[in-house]
Amino acid sequence: MTSSEEGGLYRSRLGKEMDEDALNYLSSLRDDEEIFLEDIEGTEAHVIMLYEQGIISKEEARQILRALEDLKKEATEGRVELRGGFEDIHELIESYIISRVGREIGGKLHSGRSRNDQVALDIRLRVRKYLLEIWRETLALGNALLSRAEEQRETMIIHYTHLQHAQVGYVSHYLLAHLDHLLRDLERIKACYHRTNRCPLGACAIAGSTLPLNRDRVAELLGFEDLVENSIDAVSSRDFALEAVAITAIMMTNLSRIAEDLIIWSSSEFGYIELPDELASPSSVMPHKKNPCVLELLRAKSGRVIGLLTGLLAMMKGIPTGYNRDLQEAKKPLWEALRETRDSVKILTKVIEGISFRKDRMLESISGSYAPAIELVEALIKYSKLPLRDAHKLVGSLVRRLHEQKKALKDSDPSILNELSQEILGKEVTLPEDVFKEVVNPMEVAKTRKTAGASTPKEIEKMINDRKKRLGEVAGEFEGNLKNLLKSKEKIEESISMLISGP
Amino acid sequence: MTSSEEGGLYRSRLGKEMDEDALNYLSSLRDDEEIFLEDIEGTEAHVIMLYEQGIISKEEARQILRALEDLKKEATEGRVELRGGFEDIHELIESYIISRVGREIGGKLHSGRSRNDQVALDIRLRVRKYLLEIWRETLALGNALLSRAEEQRETMIIHYTHLQHAQVGYVSHYLLAHLDHLLRDLERIKACYHRTNRCPLGACAIAGSTLPLNRDRVAELLGFEDLVENSIDAVSSRDFALEAVAITAIMMTNLSRIAEDLIIWSSSEFGYIELPDELASPSSVMPHKKNPCVLELLRAKSGRVIGLLTGLLAMMKGIPTGYNRDLQEAKKPLWEALRETRDSVKILTKVIEGISFRKDRMLESISGSYAPAIELVEALIKYSKLPLRDAHKLVGSLVRRLHEQKKALKDSDPSILNELSQEILGKEVTLPEDVFKEVVNPMEVAKTRKTAGASTPKEIEKMINDRKKRLGEVAGEFEGNLKNLLKSKEKIEESISMLISGP
Amino acid sequence: MTSSEEGGLYRSRLGKEMDEDALNYLSSLRDDEEIFLEDIEGTEAHVIMLYEQGIISKEEARQILRALEDLKKEATEGRVELRGGFEDIHELIESYIISRVGREIGGKLHSGRSRNDQVALDIRLRVRKYLLEIWRETLALGNALLSRAEEQRETMIIHYTHLQHAQVGYVSHYLLAHLDHLLRDLERIKACYHRTNRCPLGACAIAGSTLPLNRDRVAELLGFEDLVENSIDAVSSRDFALEAVAITAIMMTNLSRIAEDLIIWSSSEFGYIELPDELASPSSVMPHKKNPCVLELLRAKSGRVIGLLTGLLAMMKGIPTGYNRDLQEAKKPLWEALRETRDSVKILTKVIEGISFRKDRMLESISGSYAPAIELVEALIKYSKLPLRDAHKLVGSLVRRLHEQKKALKDSDPSILNELSQEILGKEVTLPEDVFKEVVNPMEVAKTRKTAGASTPKEIEKMINDRKKRLGEVAGEFEGNLKNLLKSKEKIEESISMLISGP
Amino acid sequence: MTSSEEGGLYRSRLGKEMDEDALNYLSSLRDDEEIFLEDIEGTEAHVIMLYEQGIISKEEARQILRALEDLKKEATEGRVELRGGFEDIHELIESYIISRVGREIGGKLHSGRSRNDQVALDIRLRVRKYLLEIWRETLALGNALLSRAEEQRETMIIHYTHLQHAQVGYVSHYLLAHLDHLLRDLERIKACYHRTNRCPLGACAIAGSTLPLNRDRVAELLGFEDLVENSIDAVSSRDFALEAVAITAIMMTNLSRIAEDLIIWSSSEFGYIELPDELASPSSVMPHKKNPCVLELLRAKSGRVIGLLTGLLAMMKGIPTGYNRDLQEAKKPLWEALRETRDSVKILTKVIEGISFRKDRMLESISGSYAPAIELVEALIKYSKLPLRDAHKLVGSLVRRLHEQKKALKDSDPSILNELSQEILGKEVTLPEDVFKEVVNPMEVAKTRKTAGASTPKEIEKMINDRKKRLGEVAGEFEGNLKNLLKSKEKIEESISMLISGP
Repeated sequence: MTSSEEGGLYRSRLGKEMDEDALNYLSSLRDDEEIFLEDIEGTEAHVIMLYEQGIISKEEARQILRALEDLKKEATEGRVELRGGFEDIHELIESYIISRVGREIGGKLHSGRSRNDQVALDIRLRVRKYLLEIWRETLALGNALLSRAEEQRETMIIHYTHLQHAQVGYVSHYLLAHLDHLLRDLERIKACYHRTNRCPLGACAIAGSTLPLNRDRVAELLGFEDLVENSIDAVSSRDFALEAVAITAIMMTNLSRIAEDLIIWSSSEFGYIELPDELASPSSVMPHKKNPCVLELLRAKSGRVIGLLTGLLAMMKGIPTGYNRDLQEAKKPLWEALRETRDSVKILTKVIEGISFRKDRMLESISGSYAPAIELVEALIKYSKLPLRDAHKLVGSLVRRLHEQKKALKDSDPSILNELSQEILGKEVTLPEDVFKEVVNPMEVAKTRKTAGASTPKEIEKMINDRKKRLGEVAGEFEGNLKNLLKSKEKIEESISMLISGP
Repeated sequence: MTSSEEGGLYRSRLGKEMDEDALNYLSSLRDDEEIFLEDIEGTEAHVIMLYEQGIISKEEARQILRALEDLKKEATEGRVELRGGFEDIHELIESYIISRVGREIGGKLHSGRSRNDQVALDIRLRVRKYLLEIWRETLALGNALLSRAEEQRETMIIHYTHLQHAQVGYVSHYLLAHLDHLLRDLERIKACYHRTNRCPLGACAIAGSTLPLNRDRVAELLGFEDLVENSIDAVSSRDFALEAVAITAIMMTNLSRIAEDLIIWSSSEFGYIELPDELASPSSVMPHKKNPCVLELLRAKSGRVIGLLTGLLAMMKGIPTGYNRDLQEAKKPLWEALRETRDSVKILTKVIEGISFRKDRMLESISGSYAPAIELVEALIKYSKLPLRDAHKLVGSLVRRLHEQKKALKDSDPSILNELSQEILGKEVTLPEDVFKEVVNPMEVAKTRKTAGASTPKEIEKMINDRKKRLGEVAGEFEGNLKNLLKSKEKIEESISMLISGP
Repeated sequence: MTSSEEGGLYRSRLGKEMDEDALNYLSSLRDDEEIFLEDIEGTEAHVIMLYEQGIISKEEARQILRALEDLKKEATEGRVELRGGFEDIHELIESYIISRVGREIGGKLHSGRSRNDQVALDIRLRVRKYLLEIWRETLALGNALLSRAEEQRETMIIHYTHLQHAQVGYVSHYLLAHLDHLLRDLERIKACYHRTNRCPLGACAIAGSTLPLNRDRVAELLGFEDLVENSIDAVSSRDFALEAVAITAIMMTNLSRIAEDLIIWSSSEFGYIELPDELASPSSVMPHKKNPCVLELLRAKSGRVIGLLTGLLAMMKGIPTGYNRDLQEAKKPLWEALRETRDSVKILTKVIEGISFRKDRMLESISGSYAPAIELVEALIKYSKLPLRDAHKLVGSLVRRLHEQKKALKDSDPSILNELSQEILGKEVTLPEDVFKEVVNPMEVAKTRKTAGASTPKEIEKMINDRKKRLGEVAGEFEGNLKNLLKSKEKIEESISMLISGP
Repeated sequence: MTSSEEGGLYRSRLGKEMDEDALNYLSSLRDDEEIFLEDIEGTEAHVIMLYEQGIISKEEARQILRALEDLKKEATEGRVELRGGFEDIHELIESYIISRVGREIGGKLHSGRSRNDQVALDIRLRVRKYLLEIWRETLALGNALLSRAEEQRETMIIHYTHLQHAQVGYVSHYLLAHLDHLLRDLERIKACYHRTNRCPLGACAIAGSTLPLNRDRVAELLGFEDLVENSIDAVSSRDFALEAVAITAIMMTNLSRIAEDLIIWSSSEFGYIELPDELASPSSVMPHKKNPCVLELLRAKSGRVIGLLTGLLAMMKGIPTGYNRDLQEAKKPLWEALRETRDSVKILTKVIEGISFRKDRMLESISGSYAPAIELVEALIKYSKLPLRDAHKLVGSLVRRLHEQKKALKDSDPSILNELSQEILGKEVTLPEDVFKEVVNPMEVAKTRKTAGASTPKEIEKMINDRKKRLGEVAGEFEGNLKNLLKSKEKIEESISMLISGP
């Protein structure tokens, strides 16, 4: 693409060309790469409507659309370079069209439109696309968690609190916990998608236009569900963008916790998992290293997304209502946050699919663990009718003694309990030997849990089945939205080709 | 309230008392004031269920419930001081009950429960309440905007972009734009409310319990819509809290823009509005001052809420899955963000209700404004068939000339256009005198707008009627949720009083 | 204290009392507890100067100072309750003085002063004090790190990168690394202290006063090093406060990394350290738990301080120059950040002093580690003249083979190298047996390091001696500043007592 | 540049090539453009030292240096494209050298070095350069403020608090206030520069090397002032980077306040300043617009830098000590924050130099202002011996009455005071007519101020002279640092050319 006009298209009132440093400072051309195609598509819908409303002639529409289609093709093939003395993509494209079809026709392109509503449109089109991509990748991660959960349903692991042994349980249960978080993330993504999928075009600068524009028609052509009706709201608000980044920040923050778990679990000292070689990084100088770099980066990127959200909010804070140039700066962190999130979800899916669980190392931890102490307390409540507080005290003392003796809980027997109870509680406490043995056996204790949603085979089974269904429903909704967009895309392409080819 | 036991209730395994500095550092007692009543209520539901499941006897339940009711009464009357050597409110309350009914009975209170699921419960109860309050206050602010919009529907104002005159319009339209933002805020509040309103109790430490707890029953007694089923998810996740703060941050950020507008409008130089005396602040030393301090504070508090959100996200970032003590620190910013938001919405409602619009000053700005230039451009498109780009150039030159001559747009006439068009476009451009006069008349031009959602009386009328209906629907949903909570409250109170009074 | 006047002292121009909700929203009384004494001290200096400059009489000064001294005494004894209808502490104190000595005299107190410069003064006095406290606690933490480093200079540990084994080294070296970070933190604290220690009083509302105030004298009485000269700068800028929070955020972020290390090291799987019982927390339900809660909280509080900094910056962003009420909201996060940092440093000092290092567990990790692979590479460079890249490749293959054979590096011998080198590099590579054996012996290899600042006994010794000296110097500077403040405190107390008691 | 090897240089231990998605996710190549030259320079210093220490031969050094110089030349001419399957710039450059001089020689390049210390070096070199650029631009902005302050020393303006009229003063005083802030920014930049200017190379992976590396020599060749001695500290700490971003965030936050002032002042309603055409932006559709876009962007970018700082801190929070891949992600926000700050300072300098002050509009505001009310209060204190509180009350009532009568303060006379004082204070208060007239005359009152640093010609004069001197001193320090770097650059270039050309 070459452009005969180099910027300055709109400076009719201003006496001088813009200072070069100021232009470099102002220009968003580089960040606008993200909305190049969106700007063309939005412009095409606008032009079709201008023609339908009699604001431009059929021939004018045809010429402009042809030039836009050419540009789209060049852009898709990577033949357009975003440079020149333009403040932004909007000026660049308008200048391009004028250079192709002449000022008499090309100069009508922007009728009834302002960059204020135009950029709001482009951003919504782009965020809509990103949200669909994140939606798709999140479904994939959910499926990965689910299928590993199914596969590993008998693999036991310690469940940690404070990074200390808490209770014995199942790897599946851990994976399903994060699936449940993802299902809520998906709810948030869906709601944000629908709030984003509304059309601001037609708001013009801020107060609407005296030209007979048909806002509903443009919205329909572009696959929007509704208008952002109030014209000030349409050009001034960015809450859909803040929301998109906020929900990805929440999501990434949780994914960073998975990353942290897996990083710790892949240390030599834990050794619970092993990354596949193709996802691990070497050291430039330590030949023995196998580093979980993708997970560390994901953890860092969660920090980055937090910062991007903060920056966005800080930008919007305290600026006047209406379009202010501050809003331009909101684009960059928006793309970055959505892109980083999409890519992070994708890579984590590969990690979840690829890691091997080292059952031997997990069992090693379990076998010497005092974790069943909590179930021993509960057994004393059930069978020995001890108040929790006494049972807790008694078992606490038992653990302390075993710890001093460097003895595992599973190797103790009820006689110590009897003995200690005299000393600690001033009365004898007994527990049937078989109950005791079952409870302190870390391989068995998890199976005896009774509560809904517990880390126990029966509950895990139930949750796997239920979540499979739920994920399917969300996938269905995703497909539905995708289909709607494709349908509207076909429709607008039809309109374009009819106009272009027609007599 | 006095407590015979001073902390240390749970330290059975640890040999020494906790270091005093460490206890001060750890203790969340002061922040737990917010969940004092919630902790009692949650405990009551737990105790009723323990009795119903046969884990404690009726007499035990009765005594514990009596003590809890007493404590609730003392708390409501402000007679409880939250101090002593306790790590948190949970330890304090359990210690209190034990001191009242003895260890044999009181020591059973906590059976099948951990502080991990207990605090998750309390936080959800409290956030639920805050979200309802914010919902209510936001409805009030929406109503205030709506009724001022109705009242001021003929008051004209300049709509600004870049804090420069953009287009002439109506005060109503400005107010309605912010109402539309609030309606989306309300959608977000509602969704977050339902995600929050789920019961984590019964997850115990992290993996569930071997006692026959009935999780659904506790959820029902406390008015929850569902469980947070997976036990790891129940104790480890705080996405509902992050979401609550995120949506209030988005909301506050937008309110800060209203504050900024009103601060600028109440400067001497703008003079568009006047705050009522009872909402303005004086200076300690400048007797002439009337400062819009509440608005400045609201603007600052939007910054604060951004920081609270950031802090929360940063806390959660990169910590292992499961309960970690880090989660304790999340409580303080959570309460602060929700409280500040609720209070800010409330005060802004008073401001919106109380300000007077100074039409004289607004008209003064309008009357000398070049803002109708954009509609002059559109008239040239419509009547003179000029391409927008030429019309823009021509009117730009016109404005420049008028500006040099210190002449207002409304005082010019079409002859200058004709003259300039020769010079600028190399051809004569004419516009009928009456069209020209209507368009450059800033008092009339806004009425000629044609687009949906424009700042024009017809559209404003339509939006007022529609939004009235929508606000009513959201108010209805709010009432519904409130009623559900009240119903469940009655139910649990009935259960308690039956158990307490019964034989 | 009781006050006959309840707020509204300054509302002479405004027709109505302030709305109660607005007053609650506006009032900073609760946050002002932090500057209660500072406000009195600053007022005393102001009053002495007013007298010295002939603006008030000796008798007037005497009566006001007496009342202020009384109030100070009541405040120190905790007998003053900060409530009533006041916007802030300044109005409360002025009202109190007027209620004590009458309006004719008390009404002169505020001459030549505005709340704008007064609150800037109070904040600087308070931040100055906090910075000294943080300085003191940081010195203590530095000393703790240093003395544990001296004590543990022979304790070996794995140095990790990516939480994977990197190189074998010494616990001392780890502790000294964090001491070096602290030394830079101390440089930043010191610089911020001196930038804070400047007097804004006398700037009045924003432009100075027509009264003959002596700004230098007030500065001298309060121990300041200089004025904040420009009156707009004095009331409008808060960069000293932002800087104070920024440097504590940087510091806390690094301390959170120590916390993370220690949390991981106190897991069962690592088991490198044990917390003393008095710094560990129990579980309410799991009798076996010993949780590193203070460290988790410190980690969380680093997140909180990040949020407080963000909030502060966001508040200041984009507000007009001059005093705006936004600045009031900056006080709360300021106190919180400085207090949390001070307390966190203090608790970490206790942790560093109290933890035991479990050499057995550390040696267990070391003995099976492939970490010396890097030194084996270097030996191949030195003795076998291999290019690093070949040596890296060769040793990488060696490690891979040993890993498959589940064999430790230290149990291999040079013959495998010879064998592998044919296969990998196509030539024989030999390494003297003794060199090989020294290098793969994880107990010996660290001693052979040659570079400045390495984890090797000689370098550690050198650094211990040097850092001892440096810490001493910083302690000396701290004492110097403390002494200066005490001297000025004596001076002002002398002036007060002379004026009070004098004839 | 072409590279025969495509990544994977270090994967000797790992069995498979890296997954392509993982490589894309991991690769920092694009962000590393910023440190391309730095990496070459650091490598050259390392190679010279390796030769001097006898680790590589002269011929090996020569060949490697030649290839590096070639690459540097290609890079400077923009002929190198940063792509290929490399994880980062370090791998790319090493691969390039190997492809040029062969593995036997090129494979020695990285001896005794790890990417961990190498990237720490590169970042410090780059941050050092950025800090110098910001230092230079800040000096330029300081000079612009100073020279406009000199020029405008008689231009009067209202000083605002709460965006309400506070006191009458001078434009100069406003400009000087911001100069004083900049002088503190410069102190912070300088201190950060010296903390950054230390050499981490030689720390190797984390614990130092067994090769006889000379760390001091490398530091000298690269112009560093000292080592980052402790090897863990050298590879693990990023406090210098956090500090650099923190101080720019503080600076940008203050610059955003200047931007806010100027945006408000360029509104039609204020009209205090006019931007030169070459720094103003037009509208695409409103021909009358002249938008202060550069200032709005600067305001937004201050929000962005706040977010970048937050992101950086959040990334570093809670990661283990040592190099973690998280640190890679810290580069991007670092470059962005420093670049945005440098460019913002530069553009603001142009704005300050270019704006015209519209004295007529400022005087219009002044002439009807009640701002001198504060000086009237002070006159009542001085001449009428009224307590401030009474004077404040009296003048407050006066202003209220004038406001109701729509009368300016300067048009009132002392008789109203007498009259009102009876009513308000119950006694007659008189003020000499000439005193009254001087004080209520807004054109005269500012000249009567007596306090140090006030907005009054004498003080402004004094401050201009003093600041001129101070700015000169800071400029001198800047030149000194620049000269040191140039000197060391010459030295290393000499070493290189001797080695390259020598026999």
